[in-house]
Amino acid sequence: MFPTLLSVTSDPPPLAASVGQAVLHLFCHVPAGPGFDAEVIRQAVKSARADGYQVVPAALLGHKADLGLMALGPDLWRLRAFQSEIQASGAVPVASYVSLTEISEYAAGVPEELRQARLFPQLPPEGKSAFCFYPMSKRRSAEHNWYSLDFESRKELMMGHGKVGRTFHGRVLQVITGSTGLDDFEWGVTLFGVHPDDLKDCVYEMRFDEASAHYAEFGPFYTGMVGDLDAVLTALGQGAPGGSG
Amino acid sequence: MFPTLLSVTSDPPPLAASVGQAVLHLFCHVPAGPGFDAEVIRQAVKSARADGYQVVPAALLGHKADLGLMALGPDLWRLRAFQSEIQASGAVPVASYVSLTEISEYAAGVPEELRQARLFPQLPPEGKSAFCFYPMSKRRSAEHNWYSLDFESRKELMMGHGKVGRTFHGRVLQVITGSTGLDDFEWGVTLFGVHPDDLKDCVYEMRFDEASAHYAEFGPFYTGMVGDLDAVLTALGQGAPGGSG
Amino acid sequence: MFPTLLSVTSDPPPLAASVGQAVLHLFCHVPAGPGFDAEVIRQAVKSARADGYQVVPAALLGHKADLGLMALGPDLWRLRAFQSEIQASGAVPVASYVSLTEISEYAAGVPEELRQARLFPQLPPEGKSAFCFYPMSKRRSAEHNWYSLDFESRKELMMGHGKVGRTFHGRVLQVITGSTGLDDFEWGVTLFGVHPDDLKDCVYEMRFDEASAHYAEFGPFYTGMVGDLDAVLTALGQGAPGGSG
Amino acid sequence: MFPTLLSVTSDPPPLAASVGQAVLHLFCHVPAGPGFDAEVIRQAVKSARADGYQVVPAALLGHKADLGLMALGPDLWRLRAFQSEIQASGAVPVASYVSLTEISEYAAGVPEELRQARLFPQLPPEGKSAFCFYPMSKRRSAEHNWYSLDFESRKELMMGHGKVGRTFHGRVLQVITGSTGLDDFEWGVTLFGVHPDDLKDCVYEMRFDEASAHYAEFGPFYTGMVGDLDAVLTALGQGAPGGSG
Amino acid sequence: MFPTLLSVTSDPPPLAASVGQAVLHLFCHVPAGPGFDAEVIRQAVKSARADGYQVVPAALLGHKADLGLMALGPDLWRLRAFQSEIQASGAVPVASYVSLTEISEYAAGVPEELRQARLFPQLPPEGKSAFCFYPMSKRRSAEHNWYSLDFESRKELMMGHGKVGRTFHGRVLQVITGSTGLDDFEWGVTLFGVHPDDLKDCVYEMRFDEASAHYAEFGPFYTGMVGDLDAVLTALGQGAPGGSG
Repeated sequence: MFPTLLSVTSDPPPLAASVGQAVLHLFCHVPAGPGFDAEVIRQAVKSARADGYQVVPAALLGHKADLGLMALGPDLWRLRAFQSEIQASGAVPVASYVSLTEISEYAAGVPEELRQARLFPQLPPEGKSAFCFYPMSKRRSAEHNWYSLDFESRKELMMGHGKVGRTFHGRVLQVITGSTGLDDFEWGVTLFGVHPDDLKDCVYEMRFDEASAHYAEFGPFYTGMVGDLDAVLTALGQGAPGGSG
Repeated sequence: MFPTLLSVTSDPPPLAASVGQAVLHLFCHVPAGPGFDAEVIRQAVKSARADGYQVVPAALLGHKADLGLMALGPDLWRLRAFQSEIQASGAVPVASYVSLTEISEYAAGVPEELRQARLFPQLPPEGKSAFCFYPMSKRRSAEHNWYSLDFESRKELMMGHGKVGRTFHGRVLQVITGSTGLDDFEWGVTLFGVHPDDLKDCVYEMRFDEASAHYAEFGPFYTGMVGDLDAVLTALGQGAPGGSG
Repeated sequence: MFPTLLSVTSDPPPLAASVGQAVLHLFCHVPAGPGFDAEVIRQAVKSARADGYQVVPAALLGHKADLGLMALGPDLWRLRAFQSEIQASGAVPVASYVSLTEISEYAAGVPEELRQARLFPQLPPEGKSAFCFYPMSKRRSAEHNWYSLDFESRKELMMGHGKVGRTFHGRVLQVITGSTGLDDFEWGVTLFGVHPDDLKDCVYEMRFDEASAHYAEFGPFYTGMVGDLDAVLTALGQGAPGGSG
Repeated sequence: MFPTLLSVTSDPPPLAASVGQAVLHLFCHVPAGPGFDAEVIRQAVKSARADGYQVVPAALLGHKADLGLMALGPDLWRLRAFQSEIQASGAVPVASYVSLTEISEYAAGVPEELRQARLFPQLPPEGKSAFCFYPMSKRRSAEHNWYSLDFESRKELMMGHGKVGRTFHGRVLQVITGSTGLDDFEWGVTLFGVHPDDLKDCVYEMRFDEASAHYAEFGPFYTGMVGDLDAVLTALGQGAPGGSG
Repeated sequence: MFPTLLSVTSDPPPLAASVGQAVLHLFCHVPAGPGFDAEVIRQAVKSARADGYQVVPAALLGHKADLGLMALGPDLWRLRAFQSEIQASGAVPVASYVSLTEISEYAAGVPEELRQARLFPQLPPEGKSAFCFYPMSKRRSAEHNWYSLDFESRKELMMGHGKVGRTFHGRVLQVITGSTGLDDFEWGVTLFGVHPDDLKDCVYEMRFDEASAHYAEFGPFYTGMVGDLDAVLTALGQGAPGGSG
């Protein structure tokens, strides 16, 4: 097991955002056979949760990755320890995303309750087990350069965009986290849907919105099913000897 | 073998699209030698079919992948279990596509029979063993932005596009599935042709159609031959001890 | 060895193009050491030739691949069996191309002899052992969209293009095969030159031709030397115990 | 261990920049298990520091790399020896950046103290353990070509850019090193922040500055936490038997 | 060792350019540990030199590759044998470039001495051990299409370009080799500098020249130090048992 308890180094002081939480999406290949120990995953998730961190497990479809883990909490060092514990299981992170929860500049005046929900989302939402994640940036082409628009134009575009998104209320929960300067795109988008076609319909419809049509650049999409950890590991062929997730 | 029967976790509830079926294309490398057990593949396909899922096997040409498996059915968890079983054989998914059957917005009023054929296609079609798959998106450039066109313009372009496609009726069956928000492109296109040049001629001719010429972006192409599973495994050098496919 | 003879499955019916031949370019890494059995390659090539398939071996330069094999013949299943046999040797296909010989629409009226030479080329040509392969597509940008040009304009551009090519007659043989819908580009170009600078001069000069300058998109280039199989294997450090190629 | 002491070759003469220092960013995967010897890393860092080289260790988040090491000093041969020693530990460099400290042409007249701080930065800065690195280039598109602007225009743009940067004084230290002709982008940017959202806010805000909005192209981002070597190795699951970093 | 001497095949006739020399840049990962035999590298280089081929060894910085070998000589078969011998050592080519020395069309009338220096460069130059290699092509965009310019315009641009280059005479030696039709870019550029900042300053300054600013597309950069083979291997942690390089 992961020998954090044996270390004689004095731990570094926590490194947290001054506002909001750090978010680490890990997408892992899980090797078939004896090279993988699911119990190490279970312990890592249990330990992170015991420290007050949220961990959302998902079984992913397709070749890109098998196991998705979305971890949220204050301290980057603790998230890295979590990642190291996951790697110690034999799972291999093959994709990931590093971001922070945030209140966007266009939402500066939202009510306190909504503000808390954005900075400290409670995940996963009940009854929405269809999962996808994708990163995105705003376009900076000669004809459509988001960063040359003034604040009012951008705010208006974002409002229109949000209006389309709200028509999916109840079918899709959208969690947008900021990653400019931290990862290759500017935002990470995590969607939780009731049905997989809720995810598809939502992203498809928003693509016609001007903020997306002219200004969005999308990265790769990771799709799967949120479930408790044992269900996820079982779906990955790593049948559980017991326990809960 | 794959220990799904040993799990003590209560299975998660099925996760299905509210309309249509989920489709998982898996493109796998099949290792030469003892690292691969073809029998595990046979059991996985048999088991999925026993649960009412369709599985179309194909032997692929070239370095991208050896074995293609197109699986269709309602529950994403069941498709993931299928994928895990495939991986347990030693086959390595190196490409894939996640999509859903759908009635496009341009085909909203099609007759019920056609609607059923699109949502629940019966695959593979008889006598069309030339296979290719590619994903595609609509372009969002400054000059040609599909998502800035109004519905009528898009519908007209799609009608013209469909007209070209229909001239290949009898030579090519085209299955288009939606993946916006689920995978890296917006649609997956699976073609079944009588001859390999039917596939080539069809895609070539459609490329002159305005909907393709100005608005289509294509991903990688996977090409091969559909056959029963034993024929496919035999073509991959995994001679069968018996059984049917 | 490759157990095709042990299979009890009834073979699938051949799958051939209705016009011309299927072409499979395989570019393989050849592992140093005991993981590779050159004899398996020799048998695979011998067996394909015995079935009437052409196989052109080439030793390639650089990291992209070591061994190039260009195989031509009618049946896709037979070509896949050839590929599986190659893989059984320990050679690893790391690049490839799938295409068909064709009479382009601009050459519809060529004399029968030329037509046969294009659909059934006899390869490799005598005395032209400098080899390169690259795939290409026609551009579909806003300013230069090949697929928006009318047939006459395209034909005229292709004529000019061909005229430049013909000035290299005797120095370079060009084999163009079609792959729209089959592989990631629209055509595969295989060049055989007397000297390596014949290849360079030919492609360089054609790049100034309008059909290339404005409309061509090129994929990766694979370069090497055509030789008999034993010479090629010897150049790859796989000295032959005897035999011919 | 690394046998530099056993070599009987006469060492090549040092190869240093005529102005400033060489900088090598190494981003490594650290294998779990016996394939990695943390002690070799400790010795390599100790030895480089004993020779007067700076080494900044960082634990990185996400799949791109586990361990970041930013090494600065005069001699390229010595930096390569450092890299070889790191590789001898079992750590695998999977990303890197080669650059030189420099006084940009726009800062030719800075005071000597600032000049020294740029050519010989003392790293890491106290109290700024949030780390990110990314490479960038100036755009050379038809509409926005940095290299077609005259010096005065470029200088003005850089001044505006610097002004935004200075509003983050105290929260973010920015180290920009030059790599035109040495690595794939033109500059490497290393940021040290008090909080991770300092990095995000700084890069986000600068993206609206015209020099970035119209002229910047960004490479991949590597994000993590600077700490002493033992803290970093511990965070990577490589608990220390003792020692300091 | 490499069994070229055991082969019973009659060697294929040499394949050489009709003008100039073939150039093979190999960039290799050198595995730590017993999987690599430096002695095999030493023999391969010695043998190539004995056959009249030049081999320039370089230790490279960063993750892209460890060992660089630039080999020049007439016969492609001999260069491939050299590559096979390198691979037999356990070194793994992970990047490479295939090109030919040439007299560009803009330099058709250079004095014979310069012509010889370009077709048969003597490498490495004395006292210039800072090394970099990068491939490049001329742009073919709608606004800046090199291949649509007439010869005089291109010649003028190349003259201006050369003038900038000549200001670095004594600090940088530039070797440009042609690869249109042979590798993915149109030219390979190998620079030898007195100091690493000579390389940086030279490429940086030329980037403002119109031929680069509007028309150049650059590939990846490989940077390191030229030295005798033993010094290079020692820098890679492969301490020499003796011998010279």
